[in-house]
Amino acid sequence: MKAVRVGLLGLGTVGGGTVNVLQRNSDVIKRRAGRRIEITAAAVRDPEKSRICDTGGFRISGDPFAIVNDPDIDIVVELIGGESPARELVLAAVAAGKPVVTANKALIALHGNEIFEAAHRAGVMIAFEAAVAGGISIIKAIREGMAANRIESLAGIINGTTNYILSGMRDQGRNFADMLDEAQKLGYAEADPTFDISGVDAAHKLTILAAIAFGIPLQFDRVYTEGIEAMTVEDLEYAEELGYRIKHLGIARRTDAGIEMRVHPTLVPARNLMASVDGVMNAVQLNGDAAGPSLYYGAGAGAEPTASAVVADLVDVVRAMTTDPENRVPHLAFHPGELQEVNVVSPDQFETAYYLHMEAEDRSGVLAEVTRILAGKEISIEAILQKEPRPGDAVASVVILTHRTVERVMEAALAEIQQLDSIPSPVTRIRVEHLD
Amino acid sequence: MKAVRVGLLGLGTVGGGTVNVLQRNSDVIKRRAGRRIEITAAAVRDPEKSRICDTGGFRISGDPFAIVNDPDIDIVVELIGGESPARELVLAAVAAGKPVVTANKALIALHGNEIFEAAHRAGVMIAFEAAVAGGISIIKAIREGMAANRIESLAGIINGTTNYILSGMRDQGRNFADMLDEAQKLGYAEADPTFDISGVDAAHKLTILAAIAFGIPLQFDRVYTEGIEAMTVEDLEYAEELGYRIKHLGIARRTDAGIEMRVHPTLVPARNLMASVDGVMNAVQLNGDAAGPSLYYGAGAGAEPTASAVVADLVDVVRAMTTDPENRVPHLAFHPGELQEVNVVSPDQFETAYYLHMEAEDRSGVLAEVTRILAGKEISIEAILQKEPRPGDAVASVVILTHRTVERVMEAALAEIQQLDSIPSPVTRIRVEHLD
Repeated sequence: MKAVRVGLLGLGTVGGGTVNVLQRNSDVIKRRAGRRIEITAAAVRDPEKSRICDTGGFRISGDPFAIVNDPDIDIVVELIGGESPARELVLAAVAAGKPVVTANKALIALHGNEIFEAAHRAGVMIAFEAAVAGGISIIKAIREGMAANRIESLAGIINGTTNYILSGMRDQGRNFADMLDEAQKLGYAEADPTFDISGVDAAHKLTILAAIAFGIPLQFDRVYTEGIEAMTVEDLEYAEELGYRIKHLGIARRTDAGIEMRVHPTLVPARNLMASVDGVMNAVQLNGDAAGPSLYYGAGAGAEPTASAVVADLVDVVRAMTTDPENRVPHLAFHPGELQEVNVVSPDQFETAYYLHMEAEDRSGVLAEVTRILAGKEISIEAILQKEPRPGDAVASVVILTHRTVERVMEAALAEIQQLDSIPSPVTRIRVEHLD
Repeated sequence: MKAVRVGLLGLGTVGGGTVNVLQRNSDVIKRRAGRRIEITAAAVRDPEKSRICDTGGFRISGDPFAIVNDPDIDIVVELIGGESPARELVLAAVAAGKPVVTANKALIALHGNEIFEAAHRAGVMIAFEAAVAGGISIIKAIREGMAANRIESLAGIINGTTNYILSGMRDQGRNFADMLDEAQKLGYAEADPTFDISGVDAAHKLTILAAIAFGIPLQFDRVYTEGIEAMTVEDLEYAEELGYRIKHLGIARRTDAGIEMRVHPTLVPARNLMASVDGVMNAVQLNGDAAGPSLYYGAGAGAEPTASAVVADLVDVVRAMTTDPENRVPHLAFHPGELQEVNVVSPDQFETAYYLHMEAEDRSGVLAEVTRILAGKEISIEAILQKEPRPGDAVASVVILTHRTVERVMEAALAEIQQLDSIPSPVTRIRVEHLD
């Protein structure tokens, strides 16, 4: 089947990331989408500027409207950001009957009602998963996953810059200006960070989440917005003492009086998962009447996490364009005939770290023997805990945390350890995973 | 447009929950799906048994095959569980050209390859979001949200019973047998809890997640499986001392040697979000090459969380059956014309708890005045922190945590507080949300 031809508007951080992901994962994406997705042309403001991606495979143009109207382009991906000319370009694509994928939260929050009405009249799909928390498919989760629910409320850390600043103020005791400076140096905050720290960026995203959660029009101008400029290290510390952490949240809630939409610094109980969302990471909690509370956590920005959402939207569009409706998403994610017979690893080849717990009759002597056996297998030790015998007990506990090794090697070591006279009972062995 | 007619096979916990959710949220579901979804008939083993739902609105039958073959039924929902006759019923529905929604993890893990092949030949959709972690749309997240990614690994707490037992052993120091007993009394564990505690249930789910993540056939018999029967309170405590927590994880990972699939007790660093997933809650972490790490957290079982996934699948099926492909999911989740003009609450009506931080020249006198003002507005106090003046400083800090009140009331109280001579600088006011 013919490749789908994509026209890219903008080749900055997200545009470059999109090119890189589409090129690197071309095969696995084709197995999922059913067709190859190719970039045919990209519009840029400055053709001489250096890029984070290889631009050899497609045409570069200075005229985005020419790309939108090019009959060789099937799908338009808008990644230039801002209100204008993004709005005019998306409306032109819709007028030309072309599906649009966009990462532009300001565009959707401010002009989404107009754009969706035009798209509805034209029968064209507009996909905007990348507009909110790129690394998390939160729009899909609300719009499809929560379709059974009356959604009561949602709350989220939906701006990575403010979360990075607040996390650093708390962890390192550094003040707001200092952390903002660092966030700018690291490229997390823009040269003009006003939209981030004043909460406007989060308010754009909250506008979108509230609309799809509650079935209301996009109403950015009704979002109450407070930034983090006034936060002090002192307040972060006092909150901590009271059992809370301060996060910059976007909150939308159904109340008897209507829908509340607000963005402001918020104390959250430290035991809540949201309190542990640190650095540039994002998370959104949903409260549905049937599903109960759920939380979605992942990267909120950056070239590839945002590109991940852009390309997922492209796959959605291609699946809808191409496949019979009843098969629009393949049962097993990959199209029939695209499943691979990959080797499944046998347990003795698993490689993990280990926690070992043994009851030893003579603690000190045993420890030397056990560590000798482990060293003989080249299993290195991360930590050792030695526990005094409990009153009236002859045996003491020895707990060892190892570095990663192969299961077969650990089994051989355990067989030897189990031979020791001083270890009368079976050694407890639990695997360790760092999940990073 | 005509209602979609659903035939329910099974009317136990999940079946009853599905009826309740479809009835209670009928209107909001129709606004999202574009058509009303009605239960026409339900098959049960014992028609006399009492149910958690109202059964007045539909036919009750003792013959599930009759429902599958009833020409008045558009979609079959299989909620009887187990391998047989679920397999035969689903294959019969496929043969009759009917889409199927199922919550049956054993069926998909063990017979999914056969069922999906039959469905592919018949052009019929099989939806199974409810088979894994009902309250989280994890299958949608992997199959659609992560479509751009080469998925490197996934790891999850995908059995609520074992997580409930391990959480209780850690928090309350109670032993395995005691906690299992409690889990059974609370209805979290079955009368025969073998599938839960031995890891077989988690292995069913891991089989499904690994297939859709890596594009491999379903291979339950290749999952290495260890239960939690051998876990002791001692090991949970030692792990804690080492900075870890023990969780029963399902792990699937791409390695040079192939795909690892394993279910076993695992030490996880305490700082990882996964370590804080307690009780019957589930969570799945995904690591994609573009999106980076993400984590999805929510209820794993129970009548309504599972029904939430069943009904979301019904909405997916109806959207695919009914709408033009380019509009299969409405842009704003609800169909055009179904958006509502709901009142957006003005900030002075917001109701939250508050954190107040004031610098006071005379701490003790001020406190009495401030609490008098708050009491006068019926704002009650949850906690007070008093901080000595820093050396060389004339002012001391007073921090007050209030219970919930209306913003307008708090603003009035703050205006009065700000009049006090002893409070020379502006009071810091941060809102508190418990997110529960």
